[in-house]
Amino acid sequence: MIRLDLQPALSFLAPDALDTGREAAVAAHRALLDGSGKGGDALGWRRLLQTPDTDEMDRVEAAARRIRDEAAVLVCIGIGGSYLGAQAVLDALGPYFGKGRGPEVVFAGHHMSGAYHEQLLTHLEGKSVFVNVISKSGTTLEPALAFRLINGWMQKTYGEAEAARRTIATTDAAKGALRSLADARGYETFVIPDDVGGRFSVLTPVGLLPIAAAGHDVRALASGAASMLERLSSEDDNLALDYAIARRAFVDIGKTTDLLAVFEPRLRGIGQWWQQLYGESEGKDGRGLFPVTLQYSTDLHSVGQYVQEGMRTLAETFLMVEDDGGSLPAPAADDNADGLDYLVGQPYTHVNRMAYEGTRDAHVAGGVPAMTVWMDAITPSTVGELLYFFEHAVGVSGYLLGVNPFDQPGVEAYKQRMFRLLGKPGA
Amino acid sequence: MIRLDLQPALSFLAPDALDTGREAAVAAHRALLDGSGKGGDALGWRRLLQTPDTDEMDRVEAAARRIRDEAAVLVCIGIGGSYLGAQAVLDALGPYFGKGRGPEVVFAGHHMSGAYHEQLLTHLEGKSVFVNVISKSGTTLEPALAFRLINGWMQKTYGEAEAARRTIATTDAAKGALRSLADARGYETFVIPDDVGGRFSVLTPVGLLPIAAAGHDVRALASGAASMLERLSSEDDNLALDYAIARRAFVDIGKTTDLLAVFEPRLRGIGQWWQQLYGESEGKDGRGLFPVTLQYSTDLHSVGQYVQEGMRTLAETFLMVEDDGGSLPAPAADDNADGLDYLVGQPYTHVNRMAYEGTRDAHVAGGVPAMTVWMDAITPSTVGELLYFFEHAVGVSGYLLGVNPFDQPGVEAYKQRMFRLLGKPGA
Repeated sequence: MIRLDLQPALSFLAPDALDTGREAAVAAHRALLDGSGKGGDALGWRRLLQTPDTDEMDRVEAAARRIRDEAAVLVCIGIGGSYLGAQAVLDALGPYFGKGRGPEVVFAGHHMSGAYHEQLLTHLEGKSVFVNVISKSGTTLEPALAFRLINGWMQKTYGEAEAARRTIATTDAAKGALRSLADARGYETFVIPDDVGGRFSVLTPVGLLPIAAAGHDVRALASGAASMLERLSSEDDNLALDYAIARRAFVDIGKTTDLLAVFEPRLRGIGQWWQQLYGESEGKDGRGLFPVTLQYSTDLHSVGQYVQEGMRTLAETFLMVEDDGGSLPAPAADDNADGLDYLVGQPYTHVNRMAYEGTRDAHVAGGVPAMTVWMDAITPSTVGELLYFFEHAVGVSGYLLGVNPFDQPGVEAYKQRMFRLLGKPGA
Repeated sequence: MIRLDLQPALSFLAPDALDTGREAAVAAHRALLDGSGKGGDALGWRRLLQTPDTDEMDRVEAAARRIRDEAAVLVCIGIGGSYLGAQAVLDALGPYFGKGRGPEVVFAGHHMSGAYHEQLLTHLEGKSVFVNVISKSGTTLEPALAFRLINGWMQKTYGEAEAARRTIATTDAAKGALRSLADARGYETFVIPDDVGGRFSVLTPVGLLPIAAAGHDVRALASGAASMLERLSSEDDNLALDYAIARRAFVDIGKTTDLLAVFEPRLRGIGQWWQQLYGESEGKDGRGLFPVTLQYSTDLHSVGQYVQEGMRTLAETFLMVEDDGGSLPAPAADDNADGLDYLVGQPYTHVNRMAYEGTRDAHVAGGVPAMTVWMDAITPSTVGELLYFFEHAVGVSGYLLGVNPFDQPGVEAYKQRMFRLLGKPGA
């Protein structure tokens, strides 16, 4: 279960701000539901939850079993939406130390550090490696370059046929460089649907295959998301609308930056996924709050001073967990030199939660409007709910800003210049 | 060698902005040099480089050898400045995979996740563990709680005497809870000087011991910093002044947020250290640019859209490396389906650099003033230069904003509320 606590933010807004914003938000919500808004042909992430492809889920799980049975390392090659969703869920559901139930999952092609990729090849030596290359086109520079490199290593290490057997491509159904390569070499393939943008693709095979390979319950993840879709079909008591209305109101009172703060470090990846979802969906035509993820209390000892007393252009959402799964109590000691005896026996979880409450109240007192998204626990099902909640809300939020939340025209600007500098034919 | 390329930012500023700002910046710089500015009693980070304590450096290296000889894992317990500096340098100088020349270094007490600390204890089972607990007072909640827990585990595992032999405390010279504990139990200790704030402490034993334990050349790190101090003693051709003047000018043209973007992922930790340094030093009295670290090209596929076309409240500094130490060329493939044959044989480093140039030009064209800090390579010496450069510049920058760059009064706000909620005696 996910819930939203807007209360502490309301004191910053006009008394009728939620009511005033509601009419526009309901219109945006309806446009999202009937596909009549900007980018209405990119709503496959809703379609796939409404009419799940159970055959494909079976294939994802079969491929994941094959990887788990044989691989010590799974190299996932992808960038942006072909990377952040899997990383977010793997971080949230995985252990802090070691690799959990599946193979070690390492990412590649999510940047162009030569040093990183060179050291990755050394790291793979002597291990049983599978590769999942994820790219709609197969020509995005970062993953294409990494796939050349790693596929070369795979062919040299295993020979052509065995390298192909160990490679799974997640790509376009029919066209593009990676589709051609995959068909020519006989890779197992999964499809990135045409109507699902990268940042909305975590619940397609783009995210599901690596997550399943790591041993997590992807059916529960997907059904959690589907249950949230069902819940958010209502116009009343709709937390995605409330979240979108509040963020729009933050813009109106002069905020420029939106912080998503977690107190459980393994939710940081969800924050990074959220950062792409909101930054790419809203940041256009000179609009949108700049999305920044923080991890508390670590970052309270870093930018906490700024959040408390710096330029008053910040808004904040806390992403909290009722039950973090830990059972550790604050320990006793043989003396009380540190003065912490008053905490002995209280769960770490409780101490962390009081840190959250103190922080929220301090930031509100310091002029930062704050709200909280609560998860009851970090499970595949609640993570699925959370993912769909943020996706639905960003559609509404983008429409409230007057932008198309499903395109990303500005991403081409650096690429065009880079390709010219690199001497790409035709650039 | 470090250099600063201001050029692309200048087109956003008045033609005489640098000259106009220079007089105030020189005054700020002089106040920093003679200690006559706000917080002038907190300049020990300069003093220690001017008159190095060679006996202490010998002791740091001896303790580091002892740890390297015996430990499989070094647990560093600290938060904020007692954590970020070591992490930054370890990330920058260490390998991407595996643990390098020293023991595995893990951090604890940098947040209050019970799940994390519980799993950490399991991770330590059966390994040879040393602990470096770093806290000026010994009563900061996060590290004090973690030290109770881990010290309990150490005593149970090794017995009292051996646990004490494996524990090194970095703390106040004479007072505080950790000093008392350390003296009572006979820990080896290192001193955090009174005139060095947490965020300026990376070149004291706070940072030097973990960095030396991991096998890095801390003498080169310190002498790099000292050479930059020497270089920045001049009022002419002073890159710290230029950096501070430009950032002050960004505030004047309405920017609210300052991005530090790296293209080599192992510099991300430096970005996080910079974030504390600038956020805590500048973010007070409603002033300062909000500091955010990004890692490109990863984050170009995340918030790149926003940086290109979102609210025009961003300024940007790239932190770049001339020679990243990698020698990997873009590889050939058995066909050109991905269209990358035009890159074959070009070093990854070159491709990454063209991505930087394309990004910088695109962002400038999109309305983001940009400058670049260049390192010639990532070595202990250049990292030392870089650390001092940012420290000196933030002193000047804080004075230009009219704040005390050496205090952090706002950090107490959440603590007071948290302690009341936790029922701390006297809170």
